[in-house]
Amino acid sequence: MIKAGIVGGTGYTGVELLRLLAQHSGVELTAITSRGEAGTAVAEMFSSLRGSVNLKFSDPKDAPLNECDVVFFATPNGIAMQQAASLLESGVRVIDLAADFRIKDIALWEQWYGMSHASPALVAEAVYGLPEVNREQIRTARLVANPGCYPTATQLGFLPLVQSGCIDLGHLIADAKSGVSGAGRKAEIGTLFSEASDNFKAYGVPGHRHLPEIRQGLARAAGKETNQIGLTFVPHLTPMIRGIHATLYARITREEDFQAMFEQRYAAEPFVDVLPPKSHPETRSVRAANTCRIAIHRPQGGDTLVVLSVIDNLVKGAAGQAVQNMNIMFGLDECSGLSQVPVLP
Amino acid sequence: MIKAGIVGGTGYTGVELLRLLAQHSGVELTAITSRGEAGTAVAEMFSSLRGSVNLKFSDPKDAPLNECDVVFFATPNGIAMQQAASLLESGVRVIDLAADFRIKDIALWEQWYGMSHASPALVAEAVYGLPEVNREQIRTARLVANPGCYPTATQLGFLPLVQSGCIDLGHLIADAKSGVSGAGRKAEIGTLFSEASDNFKAYGVPGHRHLPEIRQGLARAAGKETNQIGLTFVPHLTPMIRGIHATLYARITREEDFQAMFEQRYAAEPFVDVLPPKSHPETRSVRAANTCRIAIHRPQGGDTLVVLSVIDNLVKGAAGQAVQNMNIMFGLDECSGLSQVPVLP
Amino acid sequence: MIKAGIVGGTGYTGVELLRLLAQHSGVELTAITSRGEAGTAVAEMFSSLRGSVNLKFSDPKDAPLNECDVVFFATPNGIAMQQAASLLESGVRVIDLAADFRIKDIALWEQWYGMSHASPALVAEAVYGLPEVNREQIRTARLVANPGCYPTATQLGFLPLVQSGCIDLGHLIADAKSGVSGAGRKAEIGTLFSEASDNFKAYGVPGHRHLPEIRQGLARAAGKETNQIGLTFVPHLTPMIRGIHATLYARITREEDFQAMFEQRYAAEPFVDVLPPKSHPETRSVRAANTCRIAIHRPQGGDTLVVLSVIDNLVKGAAGQAVQNMNIMFGLDECSGLSQVPVLP
Amino acid sequence: MIKAGIVGGTGYTGVELLRLLAQHSGVELTAITSRGEAGTAVAEMFSSLRGSVNLKFSDPKDAPLNECDVVFFATPNGIAMQQAASLLESGVRVIDLAADFRIKDIALWEQWYGMSHASPALVAEAVYGLPEVNREQIRTARLVANPGCYPTATQLGFLPLVQSGCIDLGHLIADAKSGVSGAGRKAEIGTLFSEASDNFKAYGVPGHRHLPEIRQGLARAAGKETNQIGLTFVPHLTPMIRGIHATLYARITREEDFQAMFEQRYAAEPFVDVLPPKSHPETRSVRAANTCRIAIHRPQGGDTLVVLSVIDNLVKGAAGQAVQNMNIMFGLDECSGLSQVPVLP
Repeated sequence: MIKAGIVGGTGYTGVELLRLLAQHSGVELTAITSRGEAGTAVAEMFSSLRGSVNLKFSDPKDAPLNECDVVFFATPNGIAMQQAASLLESGVRVIDLAADFRIKDIALWEQWYGMSHASPALVAEAVYGLPEVNREQIRTARLVANPGCYPTATQLGFLPLVQSGCIDLGHLIADAKSGVSGAGRKAEIGTLFSEASDNFKAYGVPGHRHLPEIRQGLARAAGKETNQIGLTFVPHLTPMIRGIHATLYARITREEDFQAMFEQRYAAEPFVDVLPPKSHPETRSVRAANTCRIAIHRPQGGDTLVVLSVIDNLVKGAAGQAVQNMNIMFGLDECSGLSQVPVLP
Repeated sequence: MIKAGIVGGTGYTGVELLRLLAQHSGVELTAITSRGEAGTAVAEMFSSLRGSVNLKFSDPKDAPLNECDVVFFATPNGIAMQQAASLLESGVRVIDLAADFRIKDIALWEQWYGMSHASPALVAEAVYGLPEVNREQIRTARLVANPGCYPTATQLGFLPLVQSGCIDLGHLIADAKSGVSGAGRKAEIGTLFSEASDNFKAYGVPGHRHLPEIRQGLARAAGKETNQIGLTFVPHLTPMIRGIHATLYARITREEDFQAMFEQRYAAEPFVDVLPPKSHPETRSVRAANTCRIAIHRPQGGDTLVVLSVIDNLVKGAAGQAVQNMNIMFGLDECSGLSQVPVLP
Repeated sequence: MIKAGIVGGTGYTGVELLRLLAQHSGVELTAITSRGEAGTAVAEMFSSLRGSVNLKFSDPKDAPLNECDVVFFATPNGIAMQQAASLLESGVRVIDLAADFRIKDIALWEQWYGMSHASPALVAEAVYGLPEVNREQIRTARLVANPGCYPTATQLGFLPLVQSGCIDLGHLIADAKSGVSGAGRKAEIGTLFSEASDNFKAYGVPGHRHLPEIRQGLARAAGKETNQIGLTFVPHLTPMIRGIHATLYARITREEDFQAMFEQRYAAEPFVDVLPPKSHPETRSVRAANTCRIAIHRPQGGDTLVVLSVIDNLVKGAAGQAVQNMNIMFGLDECSGLSQVPVLP
Repeated sequence: MIKAGIVGGTGYTGVELLRLLAQHSGVELTAITSRGEAGTAVAEMFSSLRGSVNLKFSDPKDAPLNECDVVFFATPNGIAMQQAASLLESGVRVIDLAADFRIKDIALWEQWYGMSHASPALVAEAVYGLPEVNREQIRTARLVANPGCYPTATQLGFLPLVQSGCIDLGHLIADAKSGVSGAGRKAEIGTLFSEASDNFKAYGVPGHRHLPEIRQGLARAAGKETNQIGLTFVPHLTPMIRGIHATLYARITREEDFQAMFEQRYAAEPFVDVLPPKSHPETRSVRAANTCRIAIHRPQGGDTLVVLSVIDNLVKGAAGQAVQNMNIMFGLDECSGLSQVPVLP
């Protein structure tokens, strides 16, 4: 039985981790911290967990995190980089769902995240937790940087093309649409129901923090430098709770059987589902599940390839992928606790 | 391993049954029928089931339903009453999710449902599948009439009061709100997104088919005749996919500790959760789960009691309750296959 | 040309006032204040107003409110009671969209609103701005207390019954459902899209501030004391932006032709529409318009009457009614600026 | 007073035409036809129109359309091409909101719409009703082909670039998102609330009928042949009622001040609003209004230009643009009846 702790469990990735871990037969949830809610029963804050989770939130300084086998950080950016080192020294393995350890280039990270990095050495050690790319390194990692939601959907959609070298890497386009839960459980006007419902808009077009993460991932897959990847990334806020739909555009530079390429690339992947030709994946087809579904199109037989990639931003885009990484790290069946059938309708 | 069949699996209760049975370790899904979709893979119609359900829809006349241990009817009203008899004769146990066997008074049923009943004798035999009332009879039943969604939420909310005889049975009010999936997966203008979204309305105020079902259930619980139960039932269409919220009003005729009454009545029930005083249950707190959550209020200390009762109409209000009944009928753990934690947000 | 000012224009009632006044041919919008947004162009905050409203928010202390003919307070509770007196002394007429002047019983107001009242004398003078009841007093009023949203829908639905004395006034029930904009444009977790979407819940069941307002209004209409009105009021949060649907229940004590009673009561009212028998009004049928639509039912011929009453909470429930009051106060056509056809779908 | 008739008024473009014409001081609505609803009061079908529209639907063969000055076709594709000729011969001017007269290349039209064209000669005569391009021809047109919703948002976003010749015309990308009302008021499963809510998907990626319309329009603007315009067009279904958000991508081939280019191109246009740099237009900022709002971005200073263009699909994308065309055709103020301020929230 793996003892798991969660730091910062009052956000959406926190409650989603709780949902998944409560259904995981190999995990014992040992502690969950929250500075603001210490002493409150988790199920009092999230009534969906009544009967499933009996823990109370602990004050961070009292929580027995050192006794855990693994600790998940479901915190805002900038927390894990301060607290991970001491846990690692105690022999606890760490999975950070925030962005602290995702970008290898410290200067680049500091530029996009607007703070100094507290643990550059750990960045070098951290394994980027996209199992479809780094499964072997994840097995033995002490510290896993769980990917962002947009980067997961986007990279899984571009990977086979980038690795095969059959597209123009200098002019990739990722037009991505996210449900509102991607903005987190924070009191803000912009994500109020009356602002975000019955509405659609782009945001962060001049620059979004997930841009350098995606470029880094694609560059590694292509065997290139990050600055060799030209990517226009436009995220949009969509009036739904969960789900990311990435619509990806690439210029073909070498003819291939793209459908076959994707099917082969992901044939052994338990959580990537390549749909038949002419399919249009829906975000609800993965609602509450750890699956990424992908379809490939070549409209009108032109030289532009269109890849459609959908995930649940809170599962494969956050908490589910973190559990998948934990399963790999501890030698469990990779699908343990992740076999929920998507909820439709 | 229980062999289960589903008749009419292309509606929302059908796909929900599939979701739940696919995650039930004691059930083997043997056949699912659809006249219109025979030969189509289930996962082609419902892409959420890709990887979880490998069956194809069978033509009803070819499906090996006689070899099943249990057959679920997820059909429109009027189908099960024609087909149940031959299955029962073959030794197959039947759970009807439609209304064919719910009302004991045949004339009343025919009046509300607008057709002649094809199997009055089976109506007499059928057990009304509300486990919180009829668990013992369900164990040995050949034929279970699975309750309607509104009747489940309403009866569970009124039951302790009605059984204790402390309220005015002649003037009950059930103001109920349902998500749109309660209307089924039928091509109709009234439930289009552009009609039902960002909108709220009552419907069926002059009379709704669930009214006689609720009155019958409450009368039995009270030890009265149906016509001794005065109930005003007003259903409303709510712009959400799943969920029923029943707001119930009763005039107090005898003082009691109502909170304690509810807690005791449901203390042993695995799927009824009585919330602490002053709570307001949310439909999402039971989304995709088989739980009913209930809160009791006595506003301003007056003589009107307010009970708030929420369920997921497709789970405790349909497919989940059907699986619960199956578990009881076959001596399984009542919670088998029903332990999913609600999906929030 | 009437010169109008708005105090506190950054909330939903503020922006709705701006929308309506911008289309009102008899009004010149002179000033709008906001402490936090002074200097910002209104159309920068609300891009829907680009091209229609060219004002900037003024600091409250600089705004030329004294030069206005009328000032609307679209502020939180407790502001207008501090600022109205000096405006009135300057000859400016005032319409308060908050609750400061609605409740005549000062002690009762202080109990429900949790603060001391700053202007008890003005409460005595203020006219409750429900034109269907107080049109004549509104004409000459210096200070109008614009009704709350729930109280508008509820009173208009109960009024004919209460005035005719044909129902049991001791046991009224108002089961009311509001769109999320009723909670205002405030950064709060409970009204985030990811919390309020695809969800339904009651709130404030133990007691809601609109309860005493409704009771006062019904008591006056009935010629009774407030404590003679027994009302159970249960508000619910509904996943839509605009709209209130009040489902009202009353026990009949004297037979009447209720349909005719309502039609006669509202025959001359420009903004109350009594639907034909057996109708179910939808909130979207009044979206963005100042109309209240009402239907009367007597389910199953019993002794319980059901009235369905819908309004747009931001129009007839707030800004539209305020403009209607202004029209009456200044001798304009009561419908000026309020002739928009509802937006459907 | 212009006498206007509507053929086929039971869909969303029909009811939107009714809403706008009811508020147009220069128009008298003379007749509205519906085969299926002949004799029904319009306001009975659309309760939002109670008090604003007193007409009944007429049977098409009885309606006095020949007496109208203008007739709008709000019909499915293939109707106007059969009925327009006789109206035109009677001196009635015609505005077709369907696609019958939009594509000049008859073979191309027949290929995409799957039927033979009944009036090729009228196609040659028809003026494509995008006022920002063809205002002068519209003035004198007998027959106007009102543009599609996607084509309106997309062309207005690309026009200044295409006309200036500063982008690669062979590799344009239009990633467009539409509210569900774009699918019309038809009883279909795919657009049910329970299917389309809390969900996002692309559709028609292999080919959508608006593709040839957009290409034709851009080619004309560029002074090129249609086959010289390379366009990848990916439409998506978005869980909102109204609104189109087109995210447009173009490769820069010549440096320009793009912001200034757009501002100058649309300086005199009453219904195109170019936002300041770094803006993100929201669909709700044009809800229920005839405005198109546009923002221009050049992310990270690269060579890809991103244009964001939003409209209300039922107004500027259909009924509003039709009224705008009517105003131009009859010499009215172009903004008559179209001055509604957008409804936000």
